[in-house]
Amino acid sequence: MLSKSQIGLLKSLQQKKFRREYGLFLVEGYKSVTEFAGSAYQIESVYHTPGAATLLNKLPKELNFQEISDSELQKISSLAAPQQVAALVKIPHWPALNVQELQGRFSIILDGIQDPGNLGTIIRTADWFGISHLICSEDTVEAYNPKVVQATMGSLARVRVYYTRLPKILPALQLPVYGALLHGSSIYHTDFGNEGLIVMGNEGNGLRPEVERLVTHAVTIPRMGEAESLNVAVATAIFCSELSRKT
Amino acid sequence: MLSKSQIGLLKSLQQKKFRREYGLFLVEGYKSVTEFAGSAYQIESVYHTPGAATLLNKLPKELNFQEISDSELQKISSLAAPQQVAALVKIPHWPALNVQELQGRFSIILDGIQDPGNLGTIIRTADWFGISHLICSEDTVEAYNPKVVQATMGSLARVRVYYTRLPKILPALQLPVYGALLHGSSIYHTDFGNEGLIVMGNEGNGLRPEVERLVTHAVTIPRMGEAESLNVAVATAIFCSELSRKT
Repeated sequence: MLSKSQIGLLKSLQQKKFRREYGLFLVEGYKSVTEFAGSAYQIESVYHTPGAATLLNKLPKELNFQEISDSELQKISSLAAPQQVAALVKIPHWPALNVQELQGRFSIILDGIQDPGNLGTIIRTADWFGISHLICSEDTVEAYNPKVVQATMGSLARVRVYYTRLPKILPALQLPVYGALLHGSSIYHTDFGNEGLIVMGNEGNGLRPEVERLVTHAVTIPRMGEAESLNVAVATAIFCSELSRKT
Repeated sequence: MLSKSQIGLLKSLQQKKFRREYGLFLVEGYKSVTEFAGSAYQIESVYHTPGAATLLNKLPKELNFQEISDSELQKISSLAAPQQVAALVKIPHWPALNVQELQGRFSIILDGIQDPGNLGTIIRTADWFGISHLICSEDTVEAYNPKVVQATMGSLARVRVYYTRLPKILPALQLPVYGALLHGSSIYHTDFGNEGLIVMGNEGNGLRPEVERLVTHAVTIPRMGEAESLNVAVATAIFCSELSRKT
């Protein structure tokens, strides 16, 4: 049973403003909750309907469980078809990025990605390919947006997403900067070495000039057909796959 | 100016039932309309708001243009923010698939894809990589669904999407069948030759047993991290990219 003010708070977390104010977000669905429970994230409460009781055995006993009704779940959920389990999770404050941390590996840089489904899919893809750091421009859609969290399928629990000023951080990291651009050299003939930053631009406008200027290697996925562009999550996945096959 | 019954018809096309009944669908946005106007599709009418007049110069003069008000556009559109141009387009009846047509090339087979955004992204990606045929199980989401059309960004005008019984058609095509499966051989070490079918399964359940049984080569995108699976549009794109780099 939730109080009216608890319901109000949980519902309010669908808006960025309140997620920032409270430093909390909601994770929905048993599988995703499991992933967060086994991660560095701090879980405040796990809400579950009576029907979900058997699922809870696999979650750590020391979590703060709270049984709620289906209609309460409906009220706090951002999903059309709410799942039986949801968790209230603290938004983490990752320690500031340091240069050493990103050396000897690849990280993904996102410049102004707007679509939550795209960001969520990129986080899920990064997790598949073992990429642990995503560095986003400040205007990139927020990783704790419910649609992003949903699309990551739990991978958000493992991939660190930073928001920062790209024109400042990119030079500071002192790594090769591979930019996905329409007129670069073929990705299939690019030697990526063993470390670097893969920079992907906004869905409609690509990279901002001040970010494009910092690209040290312009790279293209060669087009064999007629489409004007690729979806940004698809293009990011093709970069991840190329890195993976070469290293 | 649209009559009440025209508005009713155009709105009804958001539902599959009425698209089937009338054999028509709606394409929204200037760019997409341009792509369909330059394709084998037959355009019944182009609707445009007064503000779009200058855009229309680039469309073939012989099209049947009809000026409508912004509020009429709002009524017939499936978009939250309707664009200024929309076209009423006939659903084509492609000639039956013949074996020769698919020889010497790669085609994509979809088994029960449910998400319109995924199908749209797959069509767009196929178009980028020059893959012209998509063959779907009968329960795959319909290609003329407004969300699919939107996500293809005009590529639907160039990629043929067939719906048929996969367990019947796959053996008839007499081509290698590459199935995306979690326990196959690495995609990076697979020799795809110069023709074949790439089979992708449903978002949650993968390939149906009766389709999996027809796979001649089980292929996996190796996982380097922790995610349980890849999004199906992302996995399809990685297959397309591999085919493209190898052929």
